Amino acid sequence: MKINGKATRTIWPENGGAFVAIIDQTLLPHRLETVSLETVEDAARAILTMQVRGAPLIGATAAYGLALALRQDASDRALADAIALLAKQRPTAVNLRWALEEMRRALADLAPEARAAAALAKAAAIADDDVETCRLIGVHGLPLIEAIAKTKPKGEPVNILTHCNAGWLACVDWGTATSPIYHAHETGISVHVWVDETRPRNQGASLTAFELGSHGVPHTIVVDNAGGHLMQHGKVDLCIVGTDRVAANGDVANKIGTYLKALAAHDTGVPFYVALPYSTIDWSLASGRDIPIEERSATEVLAMTGRLADGSVVTVDIAARGSPAANPAFDVTPSRLVTGFITERGVAPASRDGLLSLYPERNESAA
Amino acid sequence: MKINGKATRTIWPENGGAFVAIIDQTLLPHRLETVSLETVEDAARAILTMQVRGAPLIGATAAYGLALALRQDASDRALADAIALLAKQRPTAVNLRWALEEMRRALADLAPEARAAAALAKAAAIADDDVETCRLIGVHGLPLIEAIAKTKPKGEPVNILTHCNAGWLACVDWGTATSPIYHAHETGISVHVWVDETRPRNQGASLTAFELGSHGVPHTIVVDNAGGHLMQHGKVDLCIVGTDRVAANGDVANKIGTYLKALAAHDTGVPFYVALPYSTIDWSLASGRDIPIEERSATEVLAMTGRLADGSVVTVDIAARGSPAANPAFDVTPSRLVTGFITERGVAPASRDGLLSLYPERNESAA
Repeated sequence: MKINGKATRTIWPENGGAFVAIIDQTLLPHRLETVSLETVEDAARAILTMQVRGAPLIGATAAYGLALALRQDASDRALADAIALLAKQRPTAVNLRWALEEMRRALADLAPEARAAAALAKAAAIADDDVETCRLIGVHGLPLIEAIAKTKPKGEPVNILTHCNAGWLACVDWGTATSPIYHAHETGISVHVWVDETRPRNQGASLTAFELGSHGVPHTIVVDNAGGHLMQHGKVDLCIVGTDRVAANGDVANKIGTYLKALAAHDTGVPFYVALPYSTIDWSLASGRDIPIEERSATEVLAMTGRLADGSVVTVDIAARGSPAANPAFDVTPSRLVTGFITERGVAPASRDGLLSLYPERNESAA
Repeated sequence: MKINGKATRTIWPENGGAFVAIIDQTLLPHRLETVSLETVEDAARAILTMQVRGAPLIGATAAYGLALALRQDASDRALADAIALLAKQRPTAVNLRWALEEMRRALADLAPEARAAAALAKAAAIADDDVETCRLIGVHGLPLIEAIAKTKPKGEPVNILTHCNAGWLACVDWGTATSPIYHAHETGISVHVWVDETRPRNQGASLTAFELGSHGVPHTIVVDNAGGHLMQHGKVDLCIVGTDRVAANGDVANKIGTYLKALAAHDTGVPFYVALPYSTIDWSLASGRDIPIEERSATEVLAMTGRLADGSVVTVDIAARGSPAANPAFDVTPSRLVTGFITERGVAPASRDGLLSLYPERNESAA
């Protein structure tokens, strides 16, 4: 999507693949800087330090990182070492291992001298595939927004609430939850997004607000506490969120606090959709109860990073001295609270049958 | 309650009423400082700048402020001027006007030379009355905690979640939502409090965590997003919150986000109680739909105050540059989501009949 009027992706090769550019997301929203990755070690560090984050973008970065490695040394040994190095940077990121496996499959049987060019092409294909998947999520989600727009008095926007950042900054372009929103905006539909701040890491206020603002989509930041009140007062027409993992029964693991918004949407009759690519469905999990929830550092709750008046970025302690904090990073929203899924294949109810209607090959493979 | 082992109130006269001491709550939790109010102007400024906050404490401060005014000049004119000055500092604070009216009634008919001593005594009575009201809320709420404690395996605490600060810092002592907790702790029951951070003003992480920590009550700060997940996993036995206003049908206006926690409690079968003094019930309001919701400054959402490593306190901008924010300060929780009320008269269902069972004189006055 656009930054300063220029169409931008989160990762792109430059100079014929001699290096790969990324946006340093650790500096957002306070500073916009691109970083050049010149070696596989640079790519590994970018993944580890979360200069890139979001499952699809991590996968694409690993793929390009492997391409950088093979420019230096395309031997079998170098290929294996680079894959091992990249894979260990984020141990729980499924897309990271998936992208590296795709690369290995495409490269292992090639002669070493053919590998560097093939790796660059395959990394680009992985990135392009993610863009196309996200674009299709938007194509399929757009009619949901169009239908609401038709019921609105002239000049009134469709109000959409989202939680966390399931935006293009987490992917390569378009995003998942944001893709229908960008599509609606491009189509000329008036949309306005309520952006949940998303404590403790504030991905809403810092990343989603940044990307919507940069692209010119009207939006308003609210604290995570406010969404229920907005829904009670008819100020939300639709919720769209992303997900980290969907169980086979349609239960949804997503950023902590998603469950609370789904409860409020259910209580007030607001449609609550989850946007996801096929890779997020974990067919091996019978229900959301089986999804392990990561407990993260208390520091994320007790401290906050921001800009001083002089533009310098500092971290401050915000809570009572000596008080401990707990920090569960995700919660599970039961499928009964989810109106539907939006995937690259279409829209379906949040249930096993709904998922199988989009991915019938899963039914056949189970039979 | 205790700070550094010493029983403390939020306001107290010193030197025979020559001045009145308060805790400067604008500096909490970063610094603990007491301030001496020597004139009515000092008291007015303390109310305006929120060095004192919380309806009961604002009322007590206004009463003591009037007593300070009458030490200088106890004429009819001075009495009226001081009441007018104090009343205008927080236009929507009901307790402020209530306390000043109580003072006027006690003082207007006295000879000017008798007024200063009577004002000091009446201010002390208003403060003591608030302490007794809050104490009784704790006495009546304690059995709810005791009953849960009996069902717990030995050594496991009763886990109570609270939102915002309905603690002794908002009152004179004990607090409302915290009073049953302090009573349980004093009784030797093992309690542990989940403290909602309470964005955007962070009264949970800064004030509730400070007062619980200072008194020695085990507690853990969580972001506002986390409570639903904790309830889903059986980590919350009971919710107790305060309220700014209760409608005659039992609908509850409280800090933004309370509605979301009540939804989660209802969905997971966790009891959800609201603690309140009689003065918080607005018998003139048929339902919560009629409660006006204050919209506060966007700056509260977009900036955050905290301590740097060197101990200095600074405010930083935390969100994407140029993104607007909305900041509704309260929400309304429908009575159907509230298990019961805890007041100085006892515990009752959250309904018109429940309220009338505690305050039968209201039924008679309506008849």
